[in-house]
Amino acid sequence: MEVTIAIDCMGGDFGPSVTLPAVVHFLQHDKQARVIMVGLPEKVEPAFAKVRSRFGERLAFQAASEVVGMDDPIATALRVKKDSSMRVAIDLVKEGRAQAAVSAGNTGALMAISRFVLKTLPGIDRPAIATVLPTLRGYTYVLDLGANVDCEPQHLLQFAIMADLLVSAVEHKDRPTVGLLNIGEEDIKGNEVVKQAGELLKESGLHFVGNVEGDDIYKGTTDIVVCDGFVGNVLLKTSEGLARMLGTFLREEFSRNPFRKIAALVALPALNAFKGRVDPRRYNGASLLGLRGIVVKSHGSADQMAFTKAIERAAEEARNRLVERISERMARSTPEVVQ
Amino acid sequence: MEVTIAIDCMGGDFGPSVTLPAVVHFLQHDKQARVIMVGLPEKVEPAFAKVRSRFGERLAFQAASEVVGMDDPIATALRVKKDSSMRVAIDLVKEGRAQAAVSAGNTGALMAISRFVLKTLPGIDRPAIATVLPTLRGYTYVLDLGANVDCEPQHLLQFAIMADLLVSAVEHKDRPTVGLLNIGEEDIKGNEVVKQAGELLKESGLHFVGNVEGDDIYKGTTDIVVCDGFVGNVLLKTSEGLARMLGTFLREEFSRNPFRKIAALVALPALNAFKGRVDPRRYNGASLLGLRGIVVKSHGSADQMAFTKAIERAAEEARNRLVERISERMARSTPEVVQ
Repeated sequence: MEVTIAIDCMGGDFGPSVTLPAVVHFLQHDKQARVIMVGLPEKVEPAFAKVRSRFGERLAFQAASEVVGMDDPIATALRVKKDSSMRVAIDLVKEGRAQAAVSAGNTGALMAISRFVLKTLPGIDRPAIATVLPTLRGYTYVLDLGANVDCEPQHLLQFAIMADLLVSAVEHKDRPTVGLLNIGEEDIKGNEVVKQAGELLKESGLHFVGNVEGDDIYKGTTDIVVCDGFVGNVLLKTSEGLARMLGTFLREEFSRNPFRKIAALVALPALNAFKGRVDPRRYNGASLLGLRGIVVKSHGSADQMAFTKAIERAAEEARNRLVERISERMARSTPEVVQ
Repeated sequence: MEVTIAIDCMGGDFGPSVTLPAVVHFLQHDKQARVIMVGLPEKVEPAFAKVRSRFGERLAFQAASEVVGMDDPIATALRVKKDSSMRVAIDLVKEGRAQAAVSAGNTGALMAISRFVLKTLPGIDRPAIATVLPTLRGYTYVLDLGANVDCEPQHLLQFAIMADLLVSAVEHKDRPTVGLLNIGEEDIKGNEVVKQAGELLKESGLHFVGNVEGDDIYKGTTDIVVCDGFVGNVLLKTSEGLARMLGTFLREEFSRNPFRKIAALVALPALNAFKGRVDPRRYNGASLLGLRGIVVKSHGSADQMAFTKAIERAAEEARNRLVERISERMARSTPEVVQ
């Protein structure tokens, strides 16, 4: 199925040196996809000119005159840099010229611009950011990851509904299970917002299995774990920090002396297989949900493989009509559920 | 320095089969320590009778007629089981017969009984639970871990003050650094409670370095990381879950086929060294802070080595007069700080 993705080629730690090869790789493997590369002409056009003939009209270029910096305040990104590559990519979605936008730029700016340009869907108070994490059993989608720090119970319910539709659409899983992140399995535990969210989820018609705890995420107890953006951001970054520390310790122990270095060579196939299984690049691409358009945020430090995954995720969401699914579901919702 | 520790020998997943050998090990290595073993006579006295002669009056036994179950509601533990081993151990601290209590039982019950029997120190609104985690640079103390789910800014400040005194006392570190767990380094980020807590911490006289993020915990950016109990509980359990998943994947990859199994033998010294560095048993023992007595909570699944660590932590806190330090510090605090 044909789909057009607008790529902010300037975002992320590495900019065009990562995003351009990723676009080429993506177009080579997805023959029905089109890409509009967005960026500063002097940085992107030369590369575009080189590969243009290979992809014909499947590849287009759209100029932008500015770039949102990783440290730019949101207000600058939103109100001053109105011709940034990030903004132009999202404008293309708004205008219907692309079905999805991908950026590795500043998350706060991306969410603010997406919200301002695309607007939220009816029935959605706040868009959320969802990502997928590897687990003992497969994958778990976790949201929100930082867009919403002070949540009301109905926001957590809306996150769960959006994630339900995301997982159904992208993983082709019927009625995915939903867990509410809490500090104990009993209904009486947790803070007030979470307790009330639990009540709403029970009435929601979703496949809600109740409270889950932090360790349930990596056990893979449920397909979806819902939490507020503060908690989600902390758990994601804590996980990144722990994984990095364990990786460092493992490398240190395998290079402590010549015997260990030889052991590392012997162990290389196992160590590489392990590394591959937990490679965060494989799960790159967080979905901004609840907007009138598809926007995928790539990790800022993504390399070519990781950025390609984010583009693929955007294409998958667009082809599976994620926005329409969320829109239709919210239109069907009873007033109590949507608030 | 002499110190007497009351041990709830019945708590945890394994009860006396773990706690009794841990007591023996502890007394063998700490010649100035005394222990009062608390438990059901039929379960504890036979073992006590066997080792009594080795430790003379350094080892005593105190009978209890009940045990708090891991699933007992807090109300039952507090109001019904008034002669539980957990309760009797804490009563011994209250009566001054022991300087600290250690239990591997139900955390909620332990906190509720400790609070009821010992009371909180003046100036402390809520006791907190602190644990130590391994980092790239050494150790970081994190609190609160679940005692307080809906915190006010002044509670986070009190947690920071108590942790400052804990780290000074136990790690002998002068003016340990304090980080406030947030979702960005900028002052403007985070939820309202955290923003206000940041203001209080700036004025506190503590060595406050500002906001830290989830990945800073395992980087070891600060000696102390302060957060509310909901977030702390989630990040601790998420870490446990992730570490377990990574351990499982590593084992699976090293046993996937005969070649990998041979590689595992060659890699064993490195793998064991790695395992030892991140062995959670080495960090077992969470401190209940802010009470008029020292209480240490062992992980429920602790084995003998882990439980011994928890007893050692209790002895260390008692010898370094942790309760007196917190009490003196709160008495000195200006009314604005204590609120």
